[in-house]
Amino acid sequence: MNKQPETAIIRRITPSLDNARYAIKRAEGEGITVEADIFKEGHDEVTAMLKWRPVGASSWRETPMRPLVNDRWMGTLCVTEPGAWEFTIEAWGDVYFSWLHDFDKKFEAGIRELGSEILEGAGFVAAAAARAGKKSPDGGALKKLSDALKSADAEQASVIAHDSDLAALMTVYSDRSISTTAEPLHPVWVERERGAFAAWYEFFPRSAEGKPDSGSKFRDCLGRIDDAKAMGFDVIYFPPIHPIGTSHRKGRNNSLKCEPGEPGVPYAIGNCKQGVNGGGHKDVAPELGTLEDFEWLVGEARERGMEIAIDFAINCSPDHPYVKAHPEWFFKRPDGTIKYAENPPKKYEDVYPLNFHNDNWRELWDELRDVLLFWCARGVRIFRVDNPHTKPVSFWEWVIAEVKGKFPDTVFLSEAFTRPKMMQELAKAGFNQSYTYFTWRNSKYELAEYFAELTQSDLKEFFRANFFTNTPDILPEFLQKGGRPAFLIRAVLAAMACPVYGIYSGFELCENTPVPGREEYLDSEKYQFKGRDWNAPGNIKDFLTKLNTIRRQNRALQEYANLRIHAAENDQILCFSKATAALDDIVLVVVTVDPWQPQTAFVNIPIADFGIGETEPYVVEDLLTGERFSWRGARNFVSLNPHTRPAHILRIRRLQDRAEGQDVFA
Amino acid sequence: MNKQPETAIIRRITPSLDNARYAIKRAEGEGITVEADIFKEGHDEVTAMLKWRPVGASSWRETPMRPLVNDRWMGTLCVTEPGAWEFTIEAWGDVYFSWLHDFDKKFEAGIRELGSEILEGAGFVAAAAARAGKKSPDGGALKKLSDALKSADAEQASVIAHDSDLAALMTVYSDRSISTTAEPLHPVWVERERGAFAAWYEFFPRSAEGKPDSGSKFRDCLGRIDDAKAMGFDVIYFPPIHPIGTSHRKGRNNSLKCEPGEPGVPYAIGNCKQGVNGGGHKDVAPELGTLEDFEWLVGEARERGMEIAIDFAINCSPDHPYVKAHPEWFFKRPDGTIKYAENPPKKYEDVYPLNFHNDNWRELWDELRDVLLFWCARGVRIFRVDNPHTKPVSFWEWVIAEVKGKFPDTVFLSEAFTRPKMMQELAKAGFNQSYTYFTWRNSKYELAEYFAELTQSDLKEFFRANFFTNTPDILPEFLQKGGRPAFLIRAVLAAMACPVYGIYSGFELCENTPVPGREEYLDSEKYQFKGRDWNAPGNIKDFLTKLNTIRRQNRALQEYANLRIHAAENDQILCFSKATAALDDIVLVVVTVDPWQPQTAFVNIPIADFGIGETEPYVVEDLLTGERFSWRGARNFVSLNPHTRPAHILRIRRLQDRAEGQDVFA
Repeated sequence: MNKQPETAIIRRITPSLDNARYAIKRAEGEGITVEADIFKEGHDEVTAMLKWRPVGASSWRETPMRPLVNDRWMGTLCVTEPGAWEFTIEAWGDVYFSWLHDFDKKFEAGIRELGSEILEGAGFVAAAAARAGKKSPDGGALKKLSDALKSADAEQASVIAHDSDLAALMTVYSDRSISTTAEPLHPVWVERERGAFAAWYEFFPRSAEGKPDSGSKFRDCLGRIDDAKAMGFDVIYFPPIHPIGTSHRKGRNNSLKCEPGEPGVPYAIGNCKQGVNGGGHKDVAPELGTLEDFEWLVGEARERGMEIAIDFAINCSPDHPYVKAHPEWFFKRPDGTIKYAENPPKKYEDVYPLNFHNDNWRELWDELRDVLLFWCARGVRIFRVDNPHTKPVSFWEWVIAEVKGKFPDTVFLSEAFTRPKMMQELAKAGFNQSYTYFTWRNSKYELAEYFAELTQSDLKEFFRANFFTNTPDILPEFLQKGGRPAFLIRAVLAAMACPVYGIYSGFELCENTPVPGREEYLDSEKYQFKGRDWNAPGNIKDFLTKLNTIRRQNRALQEYANLRIHAAENDQILCFSKATAALDDIVLVVVTVDPWQPQTAFVNIPIADFGIGETEPYVVEDLLTGERFSWRGARNFVSLNPHTRPAHILRIRRLQDRAEGQDVFA
Repeated sequence: MNKQPETAIIRRITPSLDNARYAIKRAEGEGITVEADIFKEGHDEVTAMLKWRPVGASSWRETPMRPLVNDRWMGTLCVTEPGAWEFTIEAWGDVYFSWLHDFDKKFEAGIRELGSEILEGAGFVAAAAARAGKKSPDGGALKKLSDALKSADAEQASVIAHDSDLAALMTVYSDRSISTTAEPLHPVWVERERGAFAAWYEFFPRSAEGKPDSGSKFRDCLGRIDDAKAMGFDVIYFPPIHPIGTSHRKGRNNSLKCEPGEPGVPYAIGNCKQGVNGGGHKDVAPELGTLEDFEWLVGEARERGMEIAIDFAINCSPDHPYVKAHPEWFFKRPDGTIKYAENPPKKYEDVYPLNFHNDNWRELWDELRDVLLFWCARGVRIFRVDNPHTKPVSFWEWVIAEVKGKFPDTVFLSEAFTRPKMMQELAKAGFNQSYTYFTWRNSKYELAEYFAELTQSDLKEFFRANFFTNTPDILPEFLQKGGRPAFLIRAVLAAMACPVYGIYSGFELCENTPVPGREEYLDSEKYQFKGRDWNAPGNIKDFLTKLNTIRRQNRALQEYANLRIHAAENDQILCFSKATAALDDIVLVVVTVDPWQPQTAFVNIPIADFGIGETEPYVVEDLLTGERFSWRGARNFVSLNPHTRPAHILRIRRLQDRAEGQDVFA
């Protein structure tokens, strides 16, 4: 009760995650449209300012909000740099404009005995002059207006009070001494460009050269990286690169028996007999080279305009140095031995899970943070995090904040394939990107519903998808059964629907031999060396190259929440668009989800949303083929063949001009 | 990072107002069904407890929550006493039940080498024994079970582990050392009985005897009170009883000129020449009697099982003692004189508004609190607050908390007829009840929509309506035009739809002469003495008496959020029901909203919701007339006549028994 109590009321701010506990996410340059209920007692005119700033900045940027209806207000801000931002709303009753409102009513009612009112108004203007500073130009101007008002009669005062300069100055120098600022501040995380728009290519460095019986080293990886670059990928993601345990090492196809010479699973991390930093998470497997080799490769990628992402998998093999140094970090049996991982009745004897709530948990958490910082210091800024949903969310919230505190441009991708609320909570806790259910959404209905959920529900505020078509663990049935056309279809869906997407190598070769009856790869390179011809016949490298080129050339495809589903009169044809707010880039994707039969449909283009009149001609250019079609009206016919033309990716070109009887399209 | 960090996640708790900033409201004995998203990393079994207590109690009551779907959980608590309560949720990963789950999976898979697992389980049981206390019966039982487990083989262990006593004990003595408790605590305000169920009767004490040219005194009010009691009302509400100013005193029909002997408007409060406490808000008008007389009347009402509510109107006449003692509390003109109230171009020279943000605001706020406490000390516990929306909400939040801190049974009714968000915010800030838009909702569509909004939207959690049929300021057009049938209709709607409702005296006499073209009373007693025959012919006192009796006899009508609208196949007939959760009281109201013509309709009774089979007979008893009708099926015919039978108020009696070929109904 010491300071003046709240007068304006600010409630139900959107977007807001759990009462501003978590940051919403945006890409650089994206807008945030903020709404709130704003009102005040009595009949004063209310002014509301939307305020925002990078966290740590001393001053706010601000823009006035405007009332919509029923005390709901709206304003839009724009975040211009990557990093942590915050916004809030300040609102107050504006004494001057309230005075003006009452003055006008009396004046319009014919009252001219307004001496006291005019003096009061002059007083408000004089106070604004003082706030502006007596010697400032604005202060001087306000002082003059105040003096003019003071000596004005009612008619003159009415003219002065409606001077547009005065209104502008009184807005700027409004009396905010009893304003209300909404608390808590609303945090915003702004992604750097590659956090918001990227094409990922995952490969095992030991498979770089595709040799069937021995592994490649970091120094052998440039060929694969250049090939990925040629296809248009810009993030190279490596599964774990650390020493691999030998105890209970798994053999081919997850065999419990490992033959001599078999390379082991990179996720069984740690071999205290290897490496210069103990043989755990701060070392590279010697069979891949040295830390210096890795750093050299990171540099080579960077010179190519690419980045290397590594895996942060908190698994320890029984040979991990932590097992000896910190047995208290692990789960123990009654006899004191350390427990291996289980999913009863299955046993994973090659992996020891860590106990994040052990009595010495702080040392464990610090160590894991230090692992991340270690790789950041070696140039890595993107981490794909393995199974984060089996560790406490509070750990992620803490460790991501710690790492971003030192390396703000770090990007974390959550590999949580679990229940939706947990996946969302991890995104709130700080993960920049998330794996999704995309891999298992195949029918038109499923895809349309899921795309809409991701881009049009509240999820869009904080959960940013990274659409992987496949992973070393997931060979979807659709790819197994649908063959090459299925690969084309899934590539179109991933690359067009989501600004961040990825493939796991082998996808470009349409590899699809499963462990029978499972969605897993037979002879997976997780367990063995893998021979491959990276230019094997039937590959879809040209198609992927085309898709990545289209993504780069069309800004609409680089935005996240602009996806809209449109009606297509065939259950096998999905139609969606992505457009920039200015409508200077509109891409319409029409894709079959049937990898076997040709399909045709009438599709319904929302031409009004695209600024095209009902009878106005427009041109659609197929960015895959270069063909151009002249369309008119909303309903248009398409014919797709999964083998030859699985999709139209149509750039919509609006009528720009009609010169000498000739239509010119944008 | 010093204590063990959060492990379970608890989000999106409902009901919750502005992240638990404000209390939800309930009546004594009402349930609160709480839902939340609850989950945890990994695969542990999660336990969640709903916990609640009166504020200040040291220990929690608790009940387990159960999962619904998709990590959404539900539990129901019951608040048993009036006053401030709070609830929260505690959740944790249950190590024992997680162990049991894994043990079962291994056992079912045929594994019998489970020595280590059994020892581990025995350890969990032993730890629970220690938590229960070694010497307690539960501790002893757990210790025995632990010992039995320790020496058991796999088959025996499986039997012991599924002992139902063990499960119950392990639930009670679960290890909560790393539990998460949701913050902040969620406040709940529980109304005392008359705050949740009451019939209000408003009269001006000076009009008690209905004398046309002089006023009655407090000592003359018992007749009116007894009459109200006979009609079934239990709260008597008096407009302001304080000294009335003489400066700019208004005359009859709001005339600016007051004739000698005219009594003045009770809302122009304060006359420093009167009263023993300065002549302001802590005094009674001498023409009504003394403070002792008022206290005597409060006591008389209490002896009749009734309560007197007074008006808290923060208006000051120019003669109020504050004007001299605290000129700084008021708004001033540039020449230093005090401003009267205005709604430009209208002037209200008999009223000075207070400035709640004046430099000496704390003294003002304290004084206003002291006014409320003054009347509380004199036995008043219900305040109808005049125009709260023109004072800061922060003031109300503070002052209501201050008063309830000393007199927890105080009830505040907000007389805010303003925009919906402000009305709602006042309810959140602490007002127990609120005036509504009911007075202006006349058509079936409007009524159905508004009833549903009040009782089925989020509003039901905090905004509790008090349906007034009329007020000294509002004579609705419907009553003006519709005559006596309109009064019957509006009485049915108010009394049946809302547990708290009221009439302003004269309603029972069907007074409906307006100021022409306005929704105001001609010759309003706000400005003059008013002659009345309280038993004038054509009065509806018997009808009101019947309605109030029905309300008292049917618990379903005493609950707030149980109103449901049902289809009636006529735009002039509204059908709604109120039923107890146990369905032991079901009241169906079918009312015409046409005050002129007879109307008929088929109405659709949700018999399934009432536990009545499609072909099952049931009896409806009209509580207004005593008639009984035998119905079967959902669709039934009604015929209403606004002059003779404006409504059916039907108690639904279900088939109870069929004895000797005779149907018996509840």
